[in-house]
Amino acid sequence: MQSRPSFAKAFRGKRVLITGVLGFIGSNLTRTLVALGAKVTILDSLIPEYGGNRRNLHGLERKVDINLADVRDRHSLPEFLRGQHFLFNLAGQTSHMDSMTDPETDLEINCRAQLTLLEACRRHNPKLRVVFASTRQIYGRPDYLPVDEQHPLRPVDVNGINKLAGEEYHLLYSRVHGVPSTVLRLTNTIGPRMRVKDARQTFVGVWLRAVLEERAFEVWGGEQLRDFTYVDDAVDAFLLAALTPAMAGKACNIGGHGPVSLQALAETLVAANDGGRFAKREFPAERKRIDIGDYYATDEMFRRLTGWAPRIDLRAGLEQSLAFFRQHVAHYL
Amino acid sequence: MQSRPSFAKAFRGKRVLITGVLGFIGSNLTRTLVALGAKVTILDSLIPEYGGNRRNLHGLERKVDINLADVRDRHSLPEFLRGQHFLFNLAGQTSHMDSMTDPETDLEINCRAQLTLLEACRRHNPKLRVVFASTRQIYGRPDYLPVDEQHPLRPVDVNGINKLAGEEYHLLYSRVHGVPSTVLRLTNTIGPRMRVKDARQTFVGVWLRAVLEERAFEVWGGEQLRDFTYVDDAVDAFLLAALTPAMAGKACNIGGHGPVSLQALAETLVAANDGGRFAKREFPAERKRIDIGDYYATDEMFRRLTGWAPRIDLRAGLEQSLAFFRQHVAHYL
Repeated sequence: MQSRPSFAKAFRGKRVLITGVLGFIGSNLTRTLVALGAKVTILDSLIPEYGGNRRNLHGLERKVDINLADVRDRHSLPEFLRGQHFLFNLAGQTSHMDSMTDPETDLEINCRAQLTLLEACRRHNPKLRVVFASTRQIYGRPDYLPVDEQHPLRPVDVNGINKLAGEEYHLLYSRVHGVPSTVLRLTNTIGPRMRVKDARQTFVGVWLRAVLEERAFEVWGGEQLRDFTYVDDAVDAFLLAALTPAMAGKACNIGGHGPVSLQALAETLVAANDGGRFAKREFPAERKRIDIGDYYATDEMFRRLTGWAPRIDLRAGLEQSLAFFRQHVAHYL
Repeated sequence: MQSRPSFAKAFRGKRVLITGVLGFIGSNLTRTLVALGAKVTILDSLIPEYGGNRRNLHGLERKVDINLADVRDRHSLPEFLRGQHFLFNLAGQTSHMDSMTDPETDLEINCRAQLTLLEACRRHNPKLRVVFASTRQIYGRPDYLPVDEQHPLRPVDVNGINKLAGEEYHLLYSRVHGVPSTVLRLTNTIGPRMRVKDARQTFVGVWLRAVLEERAFEVWGGEQLRDFTYVDDAVDAFLLAALTPAMAGKACNIGGHGPVSLQALAETLVAANDGGRFAKREFPAERKRIDIGDYYATDEMFRRLTGWAPRIDLRAGLEQSLAFFRQHVAHYL
């Protein structure tokens, strides 16, 4: 994998546009790019339910060009796109449950806004290097494990359907219109600045908050397998994807250190916190309808193409997350 | 397959809503349902480029309840949906090229309107039996032939991506919300009332018009394989899909009598017309980017579940189409 100094060489002075930047991964990516010397412009609609939190850019206000525009607003896009070298496109609605109760808002953000953005790229900056944050959710219930990129795409909720369309638009614009776009299919990502006030991004946020507040958290089922990526490793993946020409037009899984049961995750969290408790309960019926069962991915393709490998294991990732939120949790509730 | 009298028994007096009814397949379906004694309400936005042609309902004006509402208009939907037994959902944008030049309109019609309609079904008539017209286009370039329903879904243009999302919404609403929806993946459909003024529905319309006007038509390539469904057989497929409970939640291919090369199709058309000529030329470059190569489907699954089989072969279908347009072509230009 490329070292941090080589990232600095690649991004120093480069113009970078990031959408969804006030969210969890977007804000960590922004901090890294600012530290590497990139000229960062950010575009975020700051819709509270979708993970945007102004606090996530605390301390960077004067170092980045913040634009609270909505990616759904096509008229403002050309001026943002012109002259940029990279676009990290992380704007999205991530809640599966919200997508079922308000499917049209999910469509607006995850489909329509993506198509609008890509059309603007095609017209105003077709050589822009684009990296799009997709999700494991597009695979649906796995036929086999680990899931590779050839696995059938069978989303189980509106969010998955719309994210799939968003991803397909990116691959199409790369293939047909030559806008060099890459898609990363993310799994559960954890780390500082993750959403902890509810489960709209990941259930891990709710667990983490509970142990910090010395409350018991609930583990649904417990045997289910998942994989996890620490956010610094996810940020590395975005940077490498942007810098690897062979990634244009490709969709790759991003995983981590292999599968972990929810029970094991809960125990690791309690150990990382040096204390905590949880109660197991049945999987709620209304969740079961859109639950995907066990999931973990192989990210061999991405490792092979880019040299990426995760550096932070689950225990260390949870410890670093806990350390961050012990200091800052008040800003995330 | 069920006989016409048993269709009459099933649909007589039933309330049927049809979208996209002024188009090719929708208008033939409407004529059949009116003849069977159904109480038909139609919903069509009559956007000229999308195949809607008032002439298609000629003679039926007093027999159906025509509403020129747009499926994109959510406020009018509840009143149309209440009390209906069946919904044949054929509203759509079908042009691949238009979807590439104006992708957002394609999204509005093929994604957003579908989700709006399904949300309205869920809220106002969740037991409504829905049949959705999808397309072979969602498969993209086939990995193997004939294409079955397990084939990977890899659309090659914006229309294919949006139709895929529209199809997935229908299957999701069936699985999760219990709205009994069926998806039919149509291939090239031909017959009376097909679009002949341009190639927005199928290239066959342009060929047919040319032989009627005693002009030469162009055959691009010639070796490419396709399959064809005669519209009466497609109408039967919609009726059977609606009447077969086992079809709820399923997506099935509709094919015909097997693969035909474009060269053989051109020759059959000239023979059916008892005259005509064509010139072969290279496949145009701007089409090649979104062309899918050879395609033909197996529709064994649909035949097994419903007993459907095509009755009209390609030669007879072309003869009946020519006979219709010899009389009526002036209304279709």
